[in-house]
Amino acid sequence: MPSQEITTDAVIIGAGISGLIAAHKLLEAGVEVVVLEAAPRVGGRLLTKVLSDGTAFDLGGQWLGPEMWRVTNLVRDLGLATFAQNETGRMDLSAQPLSSMDQLTQAEWAWYTAKISWLVDQVNVERPAETPNASELDVMSVEEWKRQNLESEYLRHLFDQLIRTEYTIEPKDFSMLFLLYSVRSAGGFEDLIDLDGGNHTMRLTEGMQTICTKLAEKLGDRLHLDSQAYELEHSETGVRVISEGFNVNAKHAIVAIPPNQAQRIDFDPVLPRRRMKLMQRLEMGSVIKCFAIYDRPFWRTQTLKAVDPDNLIFDHAMDASSFDDKHPALVAFIGGDDAVFWSDRPAGTRRRAVLENLAMIYGDEALYPRDYFDHDWMTEPFIGGGYQCYAPPGVMTNGFEELREPIGRIHFAGTETAVWYYGYVEGAIEAGERSALEVQKALGKEVKEEI
Amino acid sequence: MPSQEITTDAVIIGAGISGLIAAHKLLEAGVEVVVLEAAPRVGGRLLTKVLSDGTAFDLGGQWLGPEMWRVTNLVRDLGLATFAQNETGRMDLSAQPLSSMDQLTQAEWAWYTAKISWLVDQVNVERPAETPNASELDVMSVEEWKRQNLESEYLRHLFDQLIRTEYTIEPKDFSMLFLLYSVRSAGGFEDLIDLDGGNHTMRLTEGMQTICTKLAEKLGDRLHLDSQAYELEHSETGVRVISEGFNVNAKHAIVAIPPNQAQRIDFDPVLPRRRMKLMQRLEMGSVIKCFAIYDRPFWRTQTLKAVDPDNLIFDHAMDASSFDDKHPALVAFIGGDDAVFWSDRPAGTRRRAVLENLAMIYGDEALYPRDYFDHDWMTEPFIGGGYQCYAPPGVMTNGFEELREPIGRIHFAGTETAVWYYGYVEGAIEAGERSALEVQKALGKEVKEEI
Repeated sequence: MPSQEITTDAVIIGAGISGLIAAHKLLEAGVEVVVLEAAPRVGGRLLTKVLSDGTAFDLGGQWLGPEMWRVTNLVRDLGLATFAQNETGRMDLSAQPLSSMDQLTQAEWAWYTAKISWLVDQVNVERPAETPNASELDVMSVEEWKRQNLESEYLRHLFDQLIRTEYTIEPKDFSMLFLLYSVRSAGGFEDLIDLDGGNHTMRLTEGMQTICTKLAEKLGDRLHLDSQAYELEHSETGVRVISEGFNVNAKHAIVAIPPNQAQRIDFDPVLPRRRMKLMQRLEMGSVIKCFAIYDRPFWRTQTLKAVDPDNLIFDHAMDASSFDDKHPALVAFIGGDDAVFWSDRPAGTRRRAVLENLAMIYGDEALYPRDYFDHDWMTEPFIGGGYQCYAPPGVMTNGFEELREPIGRIHFAGTETAVWYYGYVEGAIEAGERSALEVQKALGKEVKEEI
Repeated sequence: MPSQEITTDAVIIGAGISGLIAAHKLLEAGVEVVVLEAAPRVGGRLLTKVLSDGTAFDLGGQWLGPEMWRVTNLVRDLGLATFAQNETGRMDLSAQPLSSMDQLTQAEWAWYTAKISWLVDQVNVERPAETPNASELDVMSVEEWKRQNLESEYLRHLFDQLIRTEYTIEPKDFSMLFLLYSVRSAGGFEDLIDLDGGNHTMRLTEGMQTICTKLAEKLGDRLHLDSQAYELEHSETGVRVISEGFNVNAKHAIVAIPPNQAQRIDFDPVLPRRRMKLMQRLEMGSVIKCFAIYDRPFWRTQTLKAVDPDNLIFDHAMDASSFDDKHPALVAFIGGDDAVFWSDRPAGTRRRAVLENLAMIYGDEALYPRDYFDHDWMTEPFIGGGYQCYAPPGVMTNGFEELREPIGRIHFAGTETAVWYYGYVEGAIEAGERSALEVQKALGKEVKEEI
């Protein structure tokens, strides 16, 4: 079957939340769009599993915080219901017996976290390379910085666990400057340490992917699923995207996919080498998100057992029950090298290991869920992992902030191009809005300066 | 046109020297092969430009050393002529006025290089992760190690220049353990410091690519150019490669491409996540190799001017005249971030910058070559850079040596899977031979234990 020729104002590659937001902002401004999505679904890193009775479980992004004004406004505008995260039974850094540490260890932890906090506050979030001592901080892995600044073996373990929880990568694999930048971008160090806090307090009753399906409905036949973009031709006068099924001719293109996926598109002419290198060097984290549904929320009435993190395959677990508590559930995250290891193991073996681990913390009742499912994000063909791309040492001081700069008529969205809330839904929305504004301005459309 | 179905014993993806050697070893052992090459030429990182009078210039790998017994034997068997590298006029570390340094600086350099040399000797070259203090050395970038161990600003510059010369990457971008491993793999630290020495003494009169074209001729119609492999299906009973034009069914496959290119093949079923991550994380260096041909070799009779390396876009330059001196030539290498920068500049601007730089060292005569050409290795679509893949911090202790392990009926070749002379032609041959032996053994063929 020959490909269908389409002509429009702007073509958007990727129907994650960033691309969908860009599409909506452009339509509102009177700019016509076509959205091409390689997968058979919208949502990207937002993916909701719906049980037969309609109950939603978020296999991907799950939480919101009150300071994320873009997404909370959007959720309100779309009329979506929210509910509070249940904090009983959380197993993570905040559940560690920090208070039972000896005084020396407590003091070292306080000093270490104060030092990081101080560094975080100094980050130039718009231009991370202009942060004081940027080059020194960027050549160091988080692991190396930890070794130079944290003596206690126990605290080193705790810190590793914290890093894997938040970043789904190993401290040895990424730049200290990237850590500082992304913490600052997402609201500061308190939110990293205090997992009960800011960024993880609210959930959507119908699940996070609903945001995307609602937005997609409004696009109608402007959205094409199963339409992987193979080639993006661009010149001074326009762009042309060759995809599975469609050849889209437009005035501008917005590339709204994770940077680690960009090399799957043949750009013609090729993008500047500097940009391609940059996108190639950003790597996606590794994560498997595991749900166990039980008959009753037994973890809410018992004391958690203290378990050496080295004996666990996940770094944090918590309540993930449905909003109405009809499906009491625990969720656990396997991240970093453990995720890579368990991605290669049979599903049944993984299930057993997760449940045995939950039983170590919550008791034997955890061994017998009425349902279990997990999602291995590394198997998503057009994403390749989660939660977000990270920068190995050396990248932040070598053009990182250029990720969001347009190249001719090609614009870039996706949470990795955000200034604030890098890696979050909030950042994805900021990036989608910013890319739409770029296109509006280039087309000479009136711009409402609400942002 | 429908794809042609072929059935054979072993299918080899990649007609660089490693894949070609594997093909030959298998044919010698009575195993039939088909070789698929994505590019329209054989040779991979060996590429020779032939002038109209037949004179050869190597745009890629250029030198051999006497200790590289595999390649020197091969060159002898193929009846190829060699000649000695002309050492007059070399501008690199060995031309720096080390002797004119003050005594303190000289002593620091001696101490620093002794320390690296000592560490190099401790490397477990077969299993780098088992090197003493491997984890500590692997979380550190070369830049970080330099900052901790080298005080003099002048020596730091010198060291950066040395690293870029040998590795075409910036010290901040790769693991200290990788540096130590690759130095040890290629014969030790003396060869790194003393560029006059071991690994860069000999050239081939007809150019290095001749090795590959000679090997390819013997394969006849078993070799298919312009046949990019898209998919590799594999099971317990065999493999099937879907390429541009051919579907090849075989008992075993040898993947003889750089690891950074492996994700361009869809493996079905997917390879273990651990292996895919490993291959993704290895990055290709960045290099542009520039030739200027002159009427006379004026650099052989004059004193080099001392130039601050910061004012140069390349890190080393040297004589590259044709074997008969009919084409006196200089060659310069732009490596690392400079190469990325100059890759994005127009060809004319780059030419002028290179020539002006050569003039700073060799005098104004260098401004007027009778011919100039360069090769930007980042533009090679199925290679993506040069000389070799390197490991960012954290990779060497996380499965690096598994690169060469077969997965079911899939075997791996290419210089990045070698134990000795990683990154060199010598390593590519070792890897090709080893992969052929694996297939021979798996097929129950007699194996001559000559290796």
